[in-house]
Amino acid sequence: MSVPRISTALTGPLPHLERQFLNATATIEHWLRRQWQDRESPFYCSVDLRNSGFKIAPVDTNLFPGGFNNLNPDFHPLCVQAAMTALEKICPEAHGAVLVPENHTRNQFYLQNVATLQRILRHAGMTVRIGSLLPDVTEPREVALPDGGHLKLEPLRRRGNRLVVGDFDPCVVLLNNDLSAGIPEILRGVEQALLPPLHAGWAVRRKSNHFDAYREVAEDFAQVIGIDPWLVNPYFERCGRIDFHARKGEECLETYVGEILEDVRGKYREHGIDAEPFVIVKADAGTYGMGIMTVKDPSEVRGLNRKQRNKMAVVKEGLEVHEVIVQEGVYTFETMNDAVAEPVVYMIDHYVVGGFYRVHTERGKDQNLNAPGMQFAPLAFAAPCSSPDPDDPECPPNRFYAYGVVARLALLAAAIELERTEGADDTAGVESIATAAPGG
Amino acid sequence: MSVPRISTALTGPLPHLERQFLNATATIEHWLRRQWQDRESPFYCSVDLRNSGFKIAPVDTNLFPGGFNNLNPDFHPLCVQAAMTALEKICPEAHGAVLVPENHTRNQFYLQNVATLQRILRHAGMTVRIGSLLPDVTEPREVALPDGGHLKLEPLRRRGNRLVVGDFDPCVVLLNNDLSAGIPEILRGVEQALLPPLHAGWAVRRKSNHFDAYREVAEDFAQVIGIDPWLVNPYFERCGRIDFHARKGEECLETYVGEILEDVRGKYREHGIDAEPFVIVKADAGTYGMGIMTVKDPSEVRGLNRKQRNKMAVVKEGLEVHEVIVQEGVYTFETMNDAVAEPVVYMIDHYVVGGFYRVHTERGKDQNLNAPGMQFAPLAFAAPCSSPDPDDPECPPNRFYAYGVVARLALLAAAIELERTEGADDTAGVESIATAAPGG
Repeated sequence: MSVPRISTALTGPLPHLERQFLNATATIEHWLRRQWQDRESPFYCSVDLRNSGFKIAPVDTNLFPGGFNNLNPDFHPLCVQAAMTALEKICPEAHGAVLVPENHTRNQFYLQNVATLQRILRHAGMTVRIGSLLPDVTEPREVALPDGGHLKLEPLRRRGNRLVVGDFDPCVVLLNNDLSAGIPEILRGVEQALLPPLHAGWAVRRKSNHFDAYREVAEDFAQVIGIDPWLVNPYFERCGRIDFHARKGEECLETYVGEILEDVRGKYREHGIDAEPFVIVKADAGTYGMGIMTVKDPSEVRGLNRKQRNKMAVVKEGLEVHEVIVQEGVYTFETMNDAVAEPVVYMIDHYVVGGFYRVHTERGKDQNLNAPGMQFAPLAFAAPCSSPDPDDPECPPNRFYAYGVVARLALLAAAIELERTEGADDTAGVESIATAAPGG
Repeated sequence: MSVPRISTALTGPLPHLERQFLNATATIEHWLRRQWQDRESPFYCSVDLRNSGFKIAPVDTNLFPGGFNNLNPDFHPLCVQAAMTALEKICPEAHGAVLVPENHTRNQFYLQNVATLQRILRHAGMTVRIGSLLPDVTEPREVALPDGGHLKLEPLRRRGNRLVVGDFDPCVVLLNNDLSAGIPEILRGVEQALLPPLHAGWAVRRKSNHFDAYREVAEDFAQVIGIDPWLVNPYFERCGRIDFHARKGEECLETYVGEILEDVRGKYREHGIDAEPFVIVKADAGTYGMGIMTVKDPSEVRGLNRKQRNKMAVVKEGLEVHEVIVQEGVYTFETMNDAVAEPVVYMIDHYVVGGFYRVHTERGKDQNLNAPGMQFAPLAFAAPCSSPDPDDPECPPNRFYAYGVVARLALLAAAIELERTEGADDTAGVESIATAAPGG
């Protein structure tokens, strides 16, 4: 594999917060075990984190992770083992699975991700075929992969209430398509288990629901290990009726930007942090880093120019943005060869199975790194974030333990969020699709 | 770590049996998943295998594995993840554990195993202390380890119905002591969860019970993938009333040795195998490779000389042997630098977490390699036996898949065996101890 490996992007002694996590390992793991007793974990999840040294927080929780190809191949068995556990719980009788990918047939990295996922599921003992939603995939098509392998795309079809691929009728349908364009009719009312469920897709899902649940999880967690919850939780507010083109709802943005900057300034004072607060304004639904801006003063969201408004108004699949969240920005203090780096942690079931750094050579430490056209250099973690060593807190793998913990807090929040929004795919989903203007 | 790594001890194309396993991966994993639905896996287990090319079979299933230090350290996260799963199922509220080791304080390799186990449990989020049964450990004692680390042994004490170490009252007591010398009074009637249970110890356990269960598992499995069950199952019979010193019971041995040699000869003919059958005669209870002999003719067990009788009559802890099993010998066709090698597979819960080769420079391919005084060179598997690649059957990690499958069949047999012998620690255990003459 061509993925470069690094032990850590960090140098110097472990920051105070990471050391607190390491010292509380037994308490943290015990608490997490209890949380999962009566909750169902999403099948998989990736979490974008920011580590500013004094604070580690999730900034994005993805329920359709698309970078399994970036994980350290040494930890493939960890993915397989976690997938085995997930399948046993969710669907012990499962034998065959269909994987429904995004429609990006030209993105070689993404296709490599699909191939990696297929391999993980195969090694967990499933027969796996790829069911494409692409209208022009009308018969099986072999796609060449950068690593020399091939991926076979086949048309996903409906037979009664079941999804099939050719004559293959799977027990499980694994979605790796975030449904940004809405829930396709073919996926509705399906008899088979759909993992994750339809309401996990961006047609229904809202970041604000996620961060609402995350706030509660962070507060419980912080109490258990005796820290200020703010150290793992970014402030946020939601503006629900924005129209960037018509310049409607700017007051809401301006008010919340001001409030959050003020609150963060207070926390910086309280914790003796010498830095300038900033906030991130982004769409409440959707992914791929579109429609995101960094703001350091409320006046910046008043009177956006045409270019800024166009940038904010539309996300993936041409969806128009009317709901926005204003979230405290978290500096990233990690760099890699002078480029800013942010950790991404991958989980299958409720197990951390690896991660990588997203590195951007042309962005600042207060900017979103998941940006279109980015210079993207994934650096696989050398450790899978599951092995703290309380006896040796300076050893490199430990640095990843804190990432694994915060990522699992976000996963827990996603589980709660999905419980609360269950059944929403038949109502909010339709409404959301109705307001969307599909484009590219 | 000083463990040498090899990809495989094998060269040349995959034997037919291994290829059959690889082709049936989805069927095998699906079947195994179903088997575990209504069964409780032992907490951990190691299985000694023999691979003769035409046949892969377990020859010993250890419920108190003592070689975690020999596993490839790269797969430590796999052990941690499996331990997390086990703890969640068995004892979700567990926070603290006491590990009860064997009394071998001078065996540096064994102590390193205990330290490795402690690390696995710590990384799974437990507070772990070592509770020694040694009478002379009356206060905490630090023992130096070969790797430069330390292990702290503390006296295991009883407080009412609970086991404690100092002021530490654990939720779980993990036994890494096979109870060959009988069940110590201090462990009886304990309130806490004991893992594995007392009747998994050699005071109660019998290999014949295990291989009875294994025969059933092997027959079911063979039917599922359409092979002759003999290809994974060695013939065996039990002689229950042997007295080597008094030369009693030799007829039983002689009869069964003859029968098994004849049966194996028949199978060799049926499968076109050109080799001389042999059998292994060994104690029905106990471990550590004592009391084992290789026999190629029934006459060899008639009129054993004094040296042979002494060797067979006593196993670990000076226990006298009265129950013996006669088992079909399986050639090992694996070698490493001209030394005979046999694979040992490690599992935690029902997950394969790694393995190693036991290599013996002075033994033949038809002999027991787990022998006292052996030149023991563990070679960690480079792959954890969990990742078959159906698309690339010649790639090295695949060779380990078949080992992982057969080891899991033995684990399944152990689970069934423990179900059937539950409660036996209060009856057979006592009887067994009564007949034993404790020695060294």
